[in-house]
Amino acid sequence: MSVRFYNCRILTMTDNSIIEGELWTENDRISYIGPKKDASDKTFDREFDCKGSLLMPGLKNAHTHSAMTFSRSLADEYCLNDWLHKAIFPREAKLTPEHVYWFAKLAYADYLSGGITSCFDMYFHKDENAKAAVETGFRHVFCGAANDYGGFEDLERYFVELNDYDPLVSFIYGFHAEYTTCEDNLKLMSELAHKYKAPVFTHISETAEEVEGCKERYGVTPAVLFDKLGIFDFGGGGFHCVWFTDEDREIFKNRGLWSVFNACSNLKLASGITPVYKFIENDMKIAIGTDGAGSNNALSMFREMYLDTVLSNVETKNAAAVDPYVILKAATSGGAMCMGLNDSDVLDVGKKADIILIDMNKPSMQPENNIVRNLVYSGDNSIVKMTMIDGKILYEDGKFTTIDLDEVICECNKLRKDLA
Amino acid sequence: MSVRFYNCRILTMTDNSIIEGELWTENDRISYIGPKKDASDKTFDREFDCKGSLLMPGLKNAHTHSAMTFSRSLADEYCLNDWLHKAIFPREAKLTPEHVYWFAKLAYADYLSGGITSCFDMYFHKDENAKAAVETGFRHVFCGAANDYGGFEDLERYFVELNDYDPLVSFIYGFHAEYTTCEDNLKLMSELAHKYKAPVFTHISETAEEVEGCKERYGVTPAVLFDKLGIFDFGGGGFHCVWFTDEDREIFKNRGLWSVFNACSNLKLASGITPVYKFIENDMKIAIGTDGAGSNNALSMFREMYLDTVLSNVETKNAAAVDPYVILKAATSGGAMCMGLNDSDVLDVGKKADIILIDMNKPSMQPENNIVRNLVYSGDNSIVKMTMIDGKILYEDGKFTTIDLDEVICECNKLRKDLA
Repeated sequence: MSVRFYNCRILTMTDNSIIEGELWTENDRISYIGPKKDASDKTFDREFDCKGSLLMPGLKNAHTHSAMTFSRSLADEYCLNDWLHKAIFPREAKLTPEHVYWFAKLAYADYLSGGITSCFDMYFHKDENAKAAVETGFRHVFCGAANDYGGFEDLERYFVELNDYDPLVSFIYGFHAEYTTCEDNLKLMSELAHKYKAPVFTHISETAEEVEGCKERYGVTPAVLFDKLGIFDFGGGGFHCVWFTDEDREIFKNRGLWSVFNACSNLKLASGITPVYKFIENDMKIAIGTDGAGSNNALSMFREMYLDTVLSNVETKNAAAVDPYVILKAATSGGAMCMGLNDSDVLDVGKKADIILIDMNKPSMQPENNIVRNLVYSGDNSIVKMTMIDGKILYEDGKFTTIDLDEVICECNKLRKDLA
Repeated sequence: MSVRFYNCRILTMTDNSIIEGELWTENDRISYIGPKKDASDKTFDREFDCKGSLLMPGLKNAHTHSAMTFSRSLADEYCLNDWLHKAIFPREAKLTPEHVYWFAKLAYADYLSGGITSCFDMYFHKDENAKAAVETGFRHVFCGAANDYGGFEDLERYFVELNDYDPLVSFIYGFHAEYTTCEDNLKLMSELAHKYKAPVFTHISETAEEVEGCKERYGVTPAVLFDKLGIFDFGGGGFHCVWFTDEDREIFKNRGLWSVFNACSNLKLASGITPVYKFIENDMKIAIGTDGAGSNNALSMFREMYLDTVLSNVETKNAAAVDPYVILKAATSGGAMCMGLNDSDVLDVGKKADIILIDMNKPSMQPENNIVRNLVYSGDNSIVKMTMIDGKILYEDGKFTTIDLDEVICECNKLRKDLA
């Protein structure tokens, strides 16, 4: 597949400038970016008149539980601990591969309509989920989800098999959290990291209670504990990072670990507000995720970007506490690098064609005092006109090319009754 | 114009139940709501197959400055006081009626695409704005914007003329705020309220500094001051209400005054977080607005509803601090009653046909564990399929029937240069 996008503006995210011209794709890669160019000697499968709208790298959802769409609006009354133990874990015990297949497809439809081109997904029944990803054409990075209830027995197999499954699919080591993983299993995690010289990700410091519990058990915070156990010796990072101490940030900074923010989920579950500005002041590696639909409940990277930009303002009494461009970088190139998608970070010749088209003719994107700020402060899923992954257009003007949405909705509403 | 909506689900907002069937309109009113009905003896101008999607009352934006779309993404670095004095007031001094006409039209396009069917608007050049409203078919409730810099001289004329201008337009007394209005002018405001037995609205307790300043000047909070001066003797209410004391809430509760929340603007300008749960616990009258695009910067009632529901969670450590249905009521019937639109509050026979169609086939609205929660926790402008005001369809599938959006965008980008 080759596509010529013309009459477009392009925010490559190599910097915050916007160039006018064309972008060409050839198979899964970008083959040209630059000014208007004579294409009369070329044949494209599609010539796409962008009518002045904006091409930019796809958004990277750097922490989610895709198939948790089953639990959207299902148990909105609990804080994290009760939510997990009373509402989620008992239902997850009933999850079958079929549930994960269909509810992951629903999440992909949600992602594509919101300009998300890859996700970093911690969940179960990964084989069936991988099948759904490849059928959809979605770029899916699995994260290990092991804890004391299960998952360690499959962890190495997944690492080997899913990294050799399909170019769209990869796997990074991960475990659920300190409070669900005993010391022996944490040591096992560290051994695997060392065996493969591989990065490891986990939920970390999501609630104040989690940090207190860890200190009671080990005398230190989760970040210090994992660091001491060698879990982060080959990189990785943590999801949430709400209750990080300055020492935790120091460890993450020095080791080059990724802090992945999940503002909506943290508000909804009453977990807290991450002081995003402190991570930026310390020039740390940051990325952004939606978390699952059970706790968000949307899967919108636009809502996350908005909140990661403004939520620090009240605490700091500074309306410019967080630069929206830095947040847009975290949501695009930051997420890509965090997930090991080093070719999907920015728009450039030779990079993967993971691209979205923002409809600048939406009223919320006007006037054009500052396009980057319009995106971060005023954007939502309604401004996404087209989503391309690996050079294939998967979503355009509300329609999906690889997902039968009516079928997915029908199956999901049948299957949700098993889990109600 | 008469429309038959069929194959629909209907959330009337008289309660939180959803009925299946049909809704008919005749001119500006709803003529039937109920189960599927034989319509073979009737002729409609349009028969609209809703394919299972959801009709509900339009969202009411109960505090905004519509034409401030000129300032979207223009001055995002200031907290409220500097923002007003350094960025906004100097530019507003240059505003002409032409600016207000075009930038109000841009706001209407934004409102319509986000399911907003009326706004409560405090701004300048109201005559030209009223013309834009009627041309668009938008239901516009003006709020007086008087302060010491101007506006008191026109206030009574506007009250008389704009309430007799067009069925789509009305005017309610209002002044900017205590900190921009001297005691003599506050007394003038009270006299007008008494002369016409009319409600009065104003910005109130938006920042901690505002409340402190008022206490220095008068020894009391703004709410106590206005109450003592008789400004609220015939009702009305306040915008923002972030820093209300318990006594302020008591006054508002006892007088039946409206508290209008503006969560996004308050976060962006670092003003604070309104403890919405306290207003609900006290069974107060509440409504929701976006504030202007200069401080939000979106004009999305969905983002406001989400934040008004979840922002109390962290402070209260309670994931169910605020009931999403109560917030949806505040954003629909609450806003309508606040603005004096007593016939636009819910869907019922004889009520105004101010109706929106929510596309339930959007992935973010699935699965259907709880439709009201899906709307509040996961909704954004992308789920709005159709917006009808006064029985006329003004927006459908991304297209406007009364606004030439290309022309509006072109004019606004020309005119913004006068104000850059």
